[in-house]
Amino acid sequence: MYLHELWEKEKDYIGADICVSGWIRGHRDSKELGFIELSDGTSMKRLQVVYDKDTENFEEIGSIPFGSSIEVQGILVQSEGKNQSVELKAKRVKVLGKCDADYPLQPKRHTKEFLRSIAHLRPRANLFQAVFRIRSVAALAIHEYFGKNGYVYFHAPILTASDCEGAGEMFEVTTLPLDKLNGKVDYTKDFFGKRTNLTVSGQLEAETFAMAFSKVYTFGPTFRAENSNTKTHAAEFWMIEPEISFCDLDELMDIEEDMLKYIVSYTLEHAKDELLFLDKFQSPGLVQKLEDLVRSTFTRVTHEEVITILKNANQKWEFEPEYGEDIHKEHETYITEYFHGPVFITDWPKDIKAFYMKQNDDGKTVRAVDLEVPLSGELMGGSQREEDFDKLVTRMKELNMDLDEMKWYMDLRRYGSVVHSGFGMGFERLLIYLTGVDNIRDVIPYPRTPGNCDF
Amino acid sequence: MYLHELWEKEKDYIGADICVSGWIRGHRDSKELGFIELSDGTSMKRLQVVYDKDTENFEEIGSIPFGSSIEVQGILVQSEGKNQSVELKAKRVKVLGKCDADYPLQPKRHTKEFLRSIAHLRPRANLFQAVFRIRSVAALAIHEYFGKNGYVYFHAPILTASDCEGAGEMFEVTTLPLDKLNGKVDYTKDFFGKRTNLTVSGQLEAETFAMAFSKVYTFGPTFRAENSNTKTHAAEFWMIEPEISFCDLDELMDIEEDMLKYIVSYTLEHAKDELLFLDKFQSPGLVQKLEDLVRSTFTRVTHEEVITILKNANQKWEFEPEYGEDIHKEHETYITEYFHGPVFITDWPKDIKAFYMKQNDDGKTVRAVDLEVPLSGELMGGSQREEDFDKLVTRMKELNMDLDEMKWYMDLRRYGSVVHSGFGMGFERLLIYLTGVDNIRDVIPYPRTPGNCDF
Repeated sequence: MYLHELWEKEKDYIGADICVSGWIRGHRDSKELGFIELSDGTSMKRLQVVYDKDTENFEEIGSIPFGSSIEVQGILVQSEGKNQSVELKAKRVKVLGKCDADYPLQPKRHTKEFLRSIAHLRPRANLFQAVFRIRSVAALAIHEYFGKNGYVYFHAPILTASDCEGAGEMFEVTTLPLDKLNGKVDYTKDFFGKRTNLTVSGQLEAETFAMAFSKVYTFGPTFRAENSNTKTHAAEFWMIEPEISFCDLDELMDIEEDMLKYIVSYTLEHAKDELLFLDKFQSPGLVQKLEDLVRSTFTRVTHEEVITILKNANQKWEFEPEYGEDIHKEHETYITEYFHGPVFITDWPKDIKAFYMKQNDDGKTVRAVDLEVPLSGELMGGSQREEDFDKLVTRMKELNMDLDEMKWYMDLRRYGSVVHSGFGMGFERLLIYLTGVDNIRDVIPYPRTPGNCDF
Repeated sequence: MYLHELWEKEKDYIGADICVSGWIRGHRDSKELGFIELSDGTSMKRLQVVYDKDTENFEEIGSIPFGSSIEVQGILVQSEGKNQSVELKAKRVKVLGKCDADYPLQPKRHTKEFLRSIAHLRPRANLFQAVFRIRSVAALAIHEYFGKNGYVYFHAPILTASDCEGAGEMFEVTTLPLDKLNGKVDYTKDFFGKRTNLTVSGQLEAETFAMAFSKVYTFGPTFRAENSNTKTHAAEFWMIEPEISFCDLDELMDIEEDMLKYIVSYTLEHAKDELLFLDKFQSPGLVQKLEDLVRSTFTRVTHEEVITILKNANQKWEFEPEYGEDIHKEHETYITEYFHGPVFITDWPKDIKAFYMKQNDDGKTVRAVDLEVPLSGELMGGSQREEDFDKLVTRMKELNMDLDEMKWYMDLRRYGSVVHSGFGMGFERLLIYLTGVDNIRDVIPYPRTPGNCDF
């Protein structure tokens, strides 16, 4: 049986003869007695295995190396120890796979940098047991949230022929033999007959589905070929992009708040042991931070109000806050502290936002919203979309966009256009928030960054 | 309110003054009376809107074009019609977005080929309302199944530097300026400093996580640059790849059977209207086929037994069945008919299967399994993995594989190796089975095939 099955009803198994398998994650022994901490990775909680001279192969057990896989048959008993309620009194311990002596993940402190170099082994370490189980739990929370609320899960295409959003540098995808190219590229000979890239966002395609199903969301990988080596940038990351018809910006903020609280509550409920571990060893105060979020009310202010607050703050800024401009990390931090919680900042200057955002009557701002959360900064970015054909065309022309390329997108404004809104949330940004781990490389199983594409 | 909310408790709303929005999907009127079929895409079921001279803007309503978006306020009443239990007696009908006269999706029969050319509009058509809602429901079923059973959802990397499995032709990913290449490629200047591709399978990386969490699964996009224009091939498709430690081939088949029955039952429960629609207009007998599957027992036979059955069949084959060789479509069909249901075929000739599969003692076969289902053929392929370091090395050397490249994969056999197994299921192949739609281009929102990368 797997350990998560045991923990679900451990009391029922007391006195029973059971057989479990897993890896040795701790081992101490004396002449009379030995203790093995067994984990099969299905929960944070390990099973203490006790063996003594009554155990079949007592003599050999002490020499089984750390990291080996074993199968243990024995009787589950109540434990007298302080750290566990039950333990397994072993009748028989069988080695399944011996761990070689050069095992790099010996039980001592390792740096995160070292662990990244053994990304195929690090999920066995406690930190990554916690992080990647939370990654899984949070993903399930997201699917459940949208499923319960009548959304259709939409798989946006990964391969695209256009960079309509201009959201970032792109990777090119090709089947042309690069070593045979000679200064000229004939894309008609490429797999798709034209130049093709990896998607930077599924939003525009999601809008087409929102015009058919009203409520849709994407949850899939997106790519940026930005040459940034920061703690928050990766070339490959997962995004959630909900898109909702018959929904204005105020209703969108309701959804963002509701969704985030659902994910956090769900994770608190389904990954409590993992969060407590991280709270203790990685990010003190983590559980409190998450519980506070669920109880908090999110503030809603305009960009203009934020700039006024920042300008009136008795504070020396590295970047002076300005109306009409973007805000910086230091401003984000100040604002969430100022309001003691998450803050929606709305109605941004149109020139620093994307073409598809709904234009306000002032001619200067758009109905965009960024959600700033305490300690982590921007977590989601969204907007009401411009549903008026003429306004959208005018804006696209101002920006010298190719209208022909975008005909399909414009069609949505000609055939039964409706008020609609959507947002994007970087999944890894959410995980950094949920785990308190501060480097994106440590919340992705196999992170891809400039110069790094191993395994 | 959205229509799915109305249908959830329609009886509670009878007599209530409600406001709904959606698109006109049907419209007929006379001098005294008019009927609109309203859909917001949150369910297959449309709401019948009735308007007459008591409706505020009666004169205008008749001229609102098909496909327009409207908001209707009125009283929900019991319907006297045969086709619906309730209808909305309109007080007021407001046009939100008028549909232009050149709307290509007029209410008449369209070919699937034509609908593919307007992939941004086709989700509004009934067929695709059904197909893409089933796609979403099935995806949720998969996540729920694995979540309930203690699996960790693992995001395999999309960008990889190796084609270890040799599973198929690959797309290359680069940031090098193709038009400046001159017969030589310096990959040290590329984004990752080496040649990089889109993944063809996340299995090998999933194995590393199975050695840490015991039960894991992937669910993400995979890519093949195969130049095939068939009904079942796409360049971009989604795969589910579970990988389970402490699990042999027999237990793996239990899981495959259990999972498939769960998905089918879940879809029958949560997408009944969609399946009934497809049963009626697309694939007669569909619901019966799915209900039969849930009740059936899957047969388990070896490849050798299958060949014997085929050879003894009184049948003229296009391809003569042979021991030691793969089987063809015609054989798959015969075998599922022979056993009146799904068939697991195990223990395949090693030379036609992948290097990582567990070698049987006969020296000729491996512990591989393909699942064949009636009417759709192969739905899943899996195997027990070779967990023995020496046997794996020997096999890889026979196949002239680069052992250095694969050191991380071999490590799994040195540091606490365990019996483990896994399988892959193409999500679109499942959808073809679930919907009865026979072309992969019609179960993917924006299909990518040779020469096609639009939107």
